[in-house]
Amino acid sequence: MFTKEELSRIIEEYIRNLEFPAEPDSLYEPISYSLESGGKRIRPLLTTMACNIFDERVEHSVPCAVAVEVFHNFTLLHDDIMDNAMTRRGKPAVHRRWGGNSAILSGDAMMIYSYKLLEKASPNMLPAILHIFNDVSLKVCEGQQYDMDFGVLENVSIEEYLKMIELKTAVLMAGATVIGALCGGAGKEDCAHLYTFGTELGMAFQIRDDILDSYGSERTLGKRIGGDILEGKKTFLAIAALQAAGEDTRTEFAGLMHNREMIPEVKIARALEIYDHLQIRDKAEEAVEHYTKRAIAALDALSAERSRLEPIRELALELTKRIS
Amino acid sequence: MFTKEELSRIIEEYIRNLEFPAEPDSLYEPISYSLESGGKRIRPLLTTMACNIFDERVEHSVPCAVAVEVFHNFTLLHDDIMDNAMTRRGKPAVHRRWGGNSAILSGDAMMIYSYKLLEKASPNMLPAILHIFNDVSLKVCEGQQYDMDFGVLENVSIEEYLKMIELKTAVLMAGATVIGALCGGAGKEDCAHLYTFGTELGMAFQIRDDILDSYGSERTLGKRIGGDILEGKKTFLAIAALQAAGEDTRTEFAGLMHNREMIPEVKIARALEIYDHLQIRDKAEEAVEHYTKRAIAALDALSAERSRLEPIRELALELTKRIS
Repeated sequence: MFTKEELSRIIEEYIRNLEFPAEPDSLYEPISYSLESGGKRIRPLLTTMACNIFDERVEHSVPCAVAVEVFHNFTLLHDDIMDNAMTRRGKPAVHRRWGGNSAILSGDAMMIYSYKLLEKASPNMLPAILHIFNDVSLKVCEGQQYDMDFGVLENVSIEEYLKMIELKTAVLMAGATVIGALCGGAGKEDCAHLYTFGTELGMAFQIRDDILDSYGSERTLGKRIGGDILEGKKTFLAIAALQAAGEDTRTEFAGLMHNREMIPEVKIARALEIYDHLQIRDKAEEAVEHYTKRAIAALDALSAERSRLEPIRELALELTKRIS
Repeated sequence: MFTKEELSRIIEEYIRNLEFPAEPDSLYEPISYSLESGGKRIRPLLTTMACNIFDERVEHSVPCAVAVEVFHNFTLLHDDIMDNAMTRRGKPAVHRRWGGNSAILSGDAMMIYSYKLLEKASPNMLPAILHIFNDVSLKVCEGQQYDMDFGVLENVSIEEYLKMIELKTAVLMAGATVIGALCGGAGKEDCAHLYTFGTELGMAFQIRDDILDSYGSERTLGKRIGGDILEGKKTFLAIAALQAAGEDTRTEFAGLMHNREMIPEVKIARALEIYDHLQIRDKAEEAVEHYTKRAIAALDALSAERSRLEPIRELALELTKRIS
C-alpha cells in the first residue's frame, strides 16, 4: 500500500512531466503556469488512494487522477475571470497576467486536456469513467452558476447554500474518488459508498474553508483573514448568522455585508463580534463534524479490508481538521 | 442510403429533443438558445454521411454527430466573447444577452455536454472516438489563439494563414467525418482518407467564406458585405493582396486596413478596387478549387463502392461552390 507522501510524489512527477506543445505559447503557457502553482492536490490523492483500496497497482489511476486535477485547475482559472480575482495561490491570476481572452481560451484548452488524460484509462473502464467525469463536471458548472446567482440575491437559505457547495465543490471530490475506485476494479456498491464518502467529505471541506477564512491564521493560510466578510460573500457563517440573529442584529449584519465603504479592519472585527455573539463558529464546527462523520461511515460500509482504508481515512480527517 | 434532407431532419430532431435541466436557468438557457439558432449543421451532416458510407444504420452516429455540432457551437459562443461580436446568426450573441460571465460558464457547460453525448458511442469505438475528438478540439483552440495573435501582428504570410484555418476550421470538419466513419465501422486506411477529405474540404470552405465576405450577396448571406475589410481582418484575400501588391499599393492597402475612421462604404469600395486590380478573387477561387480537388481525390481513394459516396461528394461540392 502507498502512503500519502508516496502518492503525492507520483502525482507531482506525473504533472511535472506533462508535455504541452511549445506553440502557440500564449495558449499553453497559462496552462503550465496554473498547474505549477501547486495547491493541495486533494482530488488526485483521493483518486489514487481510492484505487489503492482495491488494487496495489495505483499507476493505473494516475492519468485519471491528474485529469481531475487539471479539470479542477481549469475551473479555478475560469472562476477567477468571473470573480475578477487578482491572485491565485499568491501569484497573479491568469487573466491578470495574460488577459481575459487568453484566459478563456487557455481554460478551454485545459478542459480538453483533462479529457485527453482520460484516454489513458483502460478501455473497458472508459465508458464508466467518462460518464462520471462528465456528470460531476457539469454539476461543478451548475454550482458555480448558483454561487454567482447568490451574489445578487438578498436571501439565501442554508439549504440553498448546502446545495450550491455540494455541486460546486463536493461532487468533484466524489467523482475523483469513484474514478479511482473504478480504476482499481471496485464493484458498484463500493463505488456508491465512495461517492457518498467524497460528497460528505467535500461538504465538510468547504465549510472548513469558510471557517478558516474568518478564523484561520494568516501565517498558516498564506492569505489575509476576513476576505469573505469584506466581499459580503454568502458563506456558511454569514447565512447562519442571518438566520440566527434577532431582527436588529440581522438588519445590522445585512447592512454590514453590503457596506463597501467601511474600513476593512472595522468591518471584519464587527462581523466577527456578531459571529461570536451568535456562536456561529460552533455551528459551523458542528456542521463539519456532521459531514465528516457521514464520510467516515461511508468508508466503513466498504467491503474492503479495514487496513486498506487507513490512508484515505487519515486524509479525510486531516482535511476536515486542517488549519491551512 | 440516406439523402442530405433525411439526415438533416434526423439531426434537427435529435437536437430539438436534447434535454437540459431547468435549473440553473442562467446556465442552460444560453445553451438551448445557441443550438436553436440553426446554422448549416455541416459537421453533423459530415458525420452521419461518413457513417452511411459504411453502414446503413446511421442512427449509431447521430449522438456523436451532434456532439461535434454542440462543440462547434460552444466555440462560437466563446469566440464571440473574445471577438466582442454583437450578433450571431442574426440574434444577439450570448454574452450580449446574458453577460460575459454567464457566456463563459454556459460555454464550459456546453463543451462538457458535447462529451456527454460521446458517452452514447458504442463502447468498443469510444476510445478511438474520444481520441480524435480531443485531438481536433485542442487544435481548434490553437487555431483560435493564432487567429487572435494575427490581430496584433503586422505581417502574416499565406502559409501562416493556411495553418491557422487548418487548425481553427478544417480539422474539426476532418474529425467530424472520421468520427462518423468510425461509427460506421470503417477501417484505418479509409479513416485516414476521410481525415484528408475533411481537412481539405474545411480549407476550401473557409476560403470560400472569405470570398463571400467580400463578394457575396447581402440578400443570400443575410449579413452586410465587407465586414472583414472594415475590421482589417487578415483573410486569405487581404494577405494575398499584401503579397501580390507593388510597394505603393501595399503601403496604401496596409494603411487602409488599419484605418478605422474612413467612411465604411469608401473603405470597402477601395479595398475591392485593389483586390480587382490584383486579381485577388481569381487567386482565392483557384485556392478553393485546389482544396476541393484534393478533397474529392481523397474520397475517390476510399475502398467503398462509388455509389455510396454520392451524398458526401455532393455536400462537399455544394459547400465549396455555395453562395450563402
